[in-house]
Amino acid sequence: MTITITAFERSPDRGRGLARDMRVRWALEEVGLPYDVRLVSFKEMKEPAHLALQPFGQIPTLEDGDLALFESGAIVFYIAEGRSGLLPQENKAQARAVAWMFAALNTVEPPIFDRSLATILERDQPWYEHRLSALEDTIRVRLASLSRHLGASDWLDGPFSAGDLLMVTVLRRLHGSGILEEYPNLTAYVARGEARPAYRRAFDAQLAVATAASAG
Amino acid sequence: MTITITAFERSPDRGRGLARDMRVRWALEEVGLPYDVRLVSFKEMKEPAHLALQPFGQIPTLEDGDLALFESGAIVFYIAEGRSGLLPQENKAQARAVAWMFAALNTVEPPIFDRSLATILERDQPWYEHRLSALEDTIRVRLASLSRHLGASDWLDGPFSAGDLLMVTVLRRLHGSGILEEYPNLTAYVARGEARPAYRRAFDAQLAVATAASAG
Repeated sequence: MTITITAFERSPDRGRGLARDMRVRWALEEVGLPYDVRLVSFKEMKEPAHLALQPFGQIPTLEDGDLALFESGAIVFYIAEGRSGLLPQENKAQARAVAWMFAALNTVEPPIFDRSLATILERDQPWYEHRLSALEDTIRVRLASLSRHLGASDWLDGPFSAGDLLMVTVLRRLHGSGILEEYPNLTAYVARGEARPAYRRAFDAQLAVATAASAG
Repeated sequence: MTITITAFERSPDRGRGLARDMRVRWALEEVGLPYDVRLVSFKEMKEPAHLALQPFGQIPTLEDGDLALFESGAIVFYIAEGRSGLLPQENKAQARAVAWMFAALNTVEPPIFDRSLATILERDQPWYEHRLSALEDTIRVRLASLSRHLGASDWLDGPFSAGDLLMVTVLRRLHGSGILEEYPNLTAYVARGEARPAYRRAFDAQLAVATAASAG
């Protein structure tokens, strides 16, 4: 039974690999699992068939036989667990990798995602400059901590893990903001992630969807 | 070797159980593990000894022998895994419980936490009413999805799990806002969580710290 994931029929990022299916594609490529993709429109995402898979009406989802999962973090964990490539075998090292998964999604992503949203939704509001500046201050506090922890290491805790995979996808959302470049070791860290063959395959796959959508 | 967690020496919530050590205390009580608490000041949280445990200078942390963990979600998962009470044994049910853990922290918590922050930091800004209204709209979109999913069930997916534990702690931050009350099944869900004996023990333990701090 092949795994099926869902992705945007027309991703708002137009193939820059910022939609959350990118994480799941990358994880599947790292562990070498084949997968099918079902594209969903914004309308379909809010309909009962999709809501049965994803209660919040978002992508991605994963279906594996009779299992249906949502939340990119949980899907990446499901893919990683018990397979080689994304989680250390040893219990304590695995617990630390899980800590970095939650750190990526609960500590580092929220202000970065808020910044992206604000640049789209709040650009014309009277508070925009103030809000952007406050968000970027928060982001810098997080990145300074992350940069200090990473130091001269390649990855956050030993070998590349699901924690690095999620963190790289979170940090990539800063491309074009100029903020990431203030932390050279984090810039290099993101580039290391993007250079992985599994990342390239996943990126190309989501880009092909966006290219077909814009041609269609 | 007894588990040691960290918590605020003086919690900004003054014992309302909103600090993130509450989740960890509750999880430890659910599985019946004894624990010690080391209180840290805001100054100590930013010093090297604590940063070695928590790279972002926050609480809580967990130390178990030579393992040091951070991120409340990861700590709750570590406590839950392989023990009875917080995660289903069966693999697919466990994967779905993990999905609810990530949903609580990555989908539901961010706008709720932003609202709390805004009520503290932006109350005197000219845009405050508009911003609060936008955040509350986002929160309502999430709560409507959650309420529809929960329906008449007691918990999000079968028996009480670590996903419910985290979701209840996230929703509790809305107490006093009037928003939770718009969704009667979510109000009852939070009350069911708060009525659990393990919750009560955890709540009382963190309240005792706040009471001692305000007397001291």
